[in-house]
Amino acid sequence: MGPTLNVLIVYAHHEPASFTSAMKNVATQVLEAQGHSVVVSDLYGQGFSAVAQKWDFVTISGSHFNYSLEQRHAANLEMSFSPDILGEIQKLKNADIVLFITPLWWLSVPAILKGWFDRVLAMGVAWDKDKIFENGMLRGKQAMVVAAAGNPVDYFKVDGRYRATPTQVLYALNHGTLAACGFNVHEPYMALNLWSASPEERTQMLKDVDFRMQSLISSPQWLIFYG
Amino acid sequence: MGPTLNVLIVYAHHEPASFTSAMKNVATQVLEAQGHSVVVSDLYGQGFSAVAQKWDFVTISGSHFNYSLEQRHAANLEMSFSPDILGEIQKLKNADIVLFITPLWWLSVPAILKGWFDRVLAMGVAWDKDKIFENGMLRGKQAMVVAAAGNPVDYFKVDGRYRATPTQVLYALNHGTLAACGFNVHEPYMALNLWSASPEERTQMLKDVDFRMQSLISSPQWLIFYG
Repeated sequence: MGPTLNVLIVYAHHEPASFTSAMKNVATQVLEAQGHSVVVSDLYGQGFSAVAQKWDFVTISGSHFNYSLEQRHAANLEMSFSPDILGEIQKLKNADIVLFITPLWWLSVPAILKGWFDRVLAMGVAWDKDKIFENGMLRGKQAMVVAAAGNPVDYFKVDGRYRATPTQVLYALNHGTLAACGFNVHEPYMALNLWSASPEERTQMLKDVDFRMQSLISSPQWLIFYG
Repeated sequence: MGPTLNVLIVYAHHEPASFTSAMKNVATQVLEAQGHSVVVSDLYGQGFSAVAQKWDFVTISGSHFNYSLEQRHAANLEMSFSPDILGEIQKLKNADIVLFITPLWWLSVPAILKGWFDRVLAMGVAWDKDKIFENGMLRGKQAMVVAAAGNPVDYFKVDGRYRATPTQVLYALNHGTLAACGFNVHEPYMALNLWSASPEERTQMLKDVDFRMQSLISSPQWLIFYG
């Protein structure tokens, strides 16, 4: 057995019978069977608020409401965020690995997960102006995106309808968000073609998730690695 | 004078003193001075709900809640969406041009605007499985992104920190969302470096927005054009 790690799964689907939910269940089972501690932030289940607002802070420092600067102010003021944000920040700080398990909507994450990035990856907590990428404030942590898309496989090719590979599609997320905070980012897993996939194909994709989770720590496949 | 058009501005900032708000005001003034009709969806002002939920529909057709399929079902059932979605769909259908005026957070739009895409650009309204891109259901309409970012200009270069140009950064939005619905998509305008910009530089950027709006219809700069 390797080291026991703290895993946070940020899960962004509303339907327990969904394929995204099935991927979350497989990941949880495999990682717990390996002895790791798994905490799930079920954003729909928690009724997570997606929208960055003034009441995200106990006190507001400026008359001109600049959200990032208020984040930094709250971080410096004994973490005076609203309780829901503070709870997520504490789970994030405690995690060695964060998995984002989500459907792909409009080549991006659903608003409820975008709101998690906007509100939880706060300036002064996850990054600052001179603390990004290899100097990001979450340096040493790992992240991986596990996503599900209905569209056919051949849409996700440079000469396909989306004119982009899955990695290119996830650029803003893997590079512009996770790596920007200093995460070492695993190659994503994307389940494609869910509109048309047969039961056998769905089973195979869940086996793929199982395999990626089995080897996540012992044989990581890095997309971006800072060390 | 050219034709009088219906312009919808979808505006996604919480602070009236923000630069994003100033860009929205310039766009509104220029387009109204040209005789166009401008309607603003002020997402923060409206308290727009970002999160795709069951109560977005008057009735639910399936026991397994698939959001896209429920959208198509609602579209086919005399548009049985919740009133807030229906109001936005009606503004969208009435618009010849839609401007998205937004800050750039995590190389993407704030969750409140992502929620507008998730909930308003509904299957059966804006697209369907065989009705995307040149066959998208919003064919003939125009769209343009006007965005504001704090980061320095040289981050947005292929050899810069983000390893991507502004157009590449906005790929999921311009190509994967707007073009996918059939919009003819204008070259975006991105105001950069707002963390450090001088008052003179800010004034110049607002003049740039003014110029783009003056020439929006007479001399469109197309990023993606289906005709």
